[in-house]
Amino acid sequence: MTMKQYLVTGAAGFIGSFVARALLNAGNKVVTIDNLSTGKRENVPEGCVMINGNDYDEVVIKQLDDYQFDSIIHIAGQSSGEISFEKPVYDLQTNAQSTLMLLNYAKKNGCKEFVFASSMAVYGDKEDPLVTESTLATPKSFYAVGKLASENYMRIYCQMFGMKCTALRFFNVFGAGQNMDNLKQGMASIYLAMALRDHHITVKGSGDRFRDFVYINDIVDAVLKSMGREKGGMFEIYNVSNCRKVYVKDIVGYIETHLPYEVTHEYVEGTPGDQNGVYGANDKIKRDLGWEGHVSFEEGMQYMIDWAL
Amino acid sequence: MTMKQYLVTGAAGFIGSFVARALLNAGNKVVTIDNLSTGKRENVPEGCVMINGNDYDEVVIKQLDDYQFDSIIHIAGQSSGEISFEKPVYDLQTNAQSTLMLLNYAKKNGCKEFVFASSMAVYGDKEDPLVTESTLATPKSFYAVGKLASENYMRIYCQMFGMKCTALRFFNVFGAGQNMDNLKQGMASIYLAMALRDHHITVKGSGDRFRDFVYINDIVDAVLKSMGREKGGMFEIYNVSNCRKVYVKDIVGYIETHLPYEVTHEYVEGTPGDQNGVYGANDKIKRDLGWEGHVSFEEGMQYMIDWAL
Repeated sequence: MTMKQYLVTGAAGFIGSFVARALLNAGNKVVTIDNLSTGKRENVPEGCVMINGNDYDEVVIKQLDDYQFDSIIHIAGQSSGEISFEKPVYDLQTNAQSTLMLLNYAKKNGCKEFVFASSMAVYGDKEDPLVTESTLATPKSFYAVGKLASENYMRIYCQMFGMKCTALRFFNVFGAGQNMDNLKQGMASIYLAMALRDHHITVKGSGDRFRDFVYINDIVDAVLKSMGREKGGMFEIYNVSNCRKVYVKDIVGYIETHLPYEVTHEYVEGTPGDQNGVYGANDKIKRDLGWEGHVSFEEGMQYMIDWAL
Repeated sequence: MTMKQYLVTGAAGFIGSFVARALLNAGNKVVTIDNLSTGKRENVPEGCVMINGNDYDEVVIKQLDDYQFDSIIHIAGQSSGEISFEKPVYDLQTNAQSTLMLLNYAKKNGCKEFVFASSMAVYGDKEDPLVTESTLATPKSFYAVGKLASENYMRIYCQMFGMKCTALRFFNVFGAGQNMDNLKQGMASIYLAMALRDHHITVKGSGDRFRDFVYINDIVDAVLKSMGREKGGMFEIYNVSNCRKVYVKDIVGYIETHLPYEVTHEYVEGTPGDQNGVYGANDKIKRDLGWEGHVSFEEGMQYMIDWAL
């Protein structure tokens, strides 16, 4: 097997570090760009070439000129809906302008494949919460607007320049290794971190909201399966989801009953632009990529609790 | 009647100047921001306060702090799909970041109404070319991605901050007064300008493409009717269209038969991201705003030819 070269943006973050590690372990060369805004340098796997900076900055992109990537996997990006309301322009730069500039780099450098970490957030809330890839997207956060714009940029690059682009709409990602210090991103990790630190969970919003959880290893698997995919067209969007609703009150309940001490909880006002909930049909990714989730919410939470304790 | 204050961005451009003039003529105060990139200073109507600069620039937005606007009508923006491929980041700034920053300004300054010049370009090409406001948007140009992102930002501002927002999806705008020097924007004006200057029309793309033309006075009427609208929700999208296909070959034919000298034409390769054609259902704008187009394509072209000659 010949060694391949990959650019994985955001390898100091949760998902990016797992993807970079998997590619490195398979014997490939991996380069990353990360601005360390929420990621941590120690997350960047050993052997990964690290470029510190913003991937929407021309000076930073310029550093890639010496490489010839087989694929670009664009995972970096401000990932909190809440923060997107505090810094909307930064959010637009990190979640949309970055994609535009990386696509342009890919085109100029003859890179033929681009995989993008999109999000279930693009859907917003729908009357029918079971969403497929062709459900009309009505974003509720600036974060989601940027993700959707990035998908649209990819469609255009495919149509015009023959690049193969895959947008993976990740549903709620969770797992051992998630950043437990960031209380604005990652529902499962936020609640677990509160329970461990304060023995008390403050839930922003209703307990009747729900999420469709996907374990980190299954996310990595979806990224790997999308690379070099043979089915589908030049541009495809896939839900990466388990097609299962898990209610907020049940997440809280699971943590409370599985920690070795008493944990209490309270409900307070929700955060702006938060979704009530959607869950994702996954027929398309099963059919085209042969992907399916292997870790249930309960198993994943147990792994996470064991790891965190 | 009390005088109202309006911000109309892009009053040095075709549509912006007509809207600003209509509001000034009705006895209101009008302020504009324009970077004069394609607009012309002499288009800015007499009496209109002009701020020269980019409406995605914090320093420029800051100049608005002394005003209290009843409505913001955001029309400025790079408007050529072709140019959007040459300067994609500039396009994102002018067509999406600008909206974000103006919405944020509106929120902080207590302005309760925002009207946005969106575009039929957001639809891209569809299997069924008759599009309604709920047709899934699949943009084919960066320009259209930015317009769609702006609509989504507006939806969020409505939901979160109770601002009344209207996105008007203009179909092909044309009319006397259109910039005849700009050969990258405005299909009718491009062909007419070529016919007047060279007695020869070079058509980029097929003659079987089609457009749904709306005369400039009808566009102004749609903007005025959307201001203070009582029907619809806080956020609404309207097609501003005549629900009629006009083929490119028929535009060329009309010009050739209505100019007082012989005009020839040829077809050459199309421009990237160009749409084959969509035409817009207009039931919604008729119902909610009582709007309908009064000038047909043929009448409008005759006005335009008379004006240009």
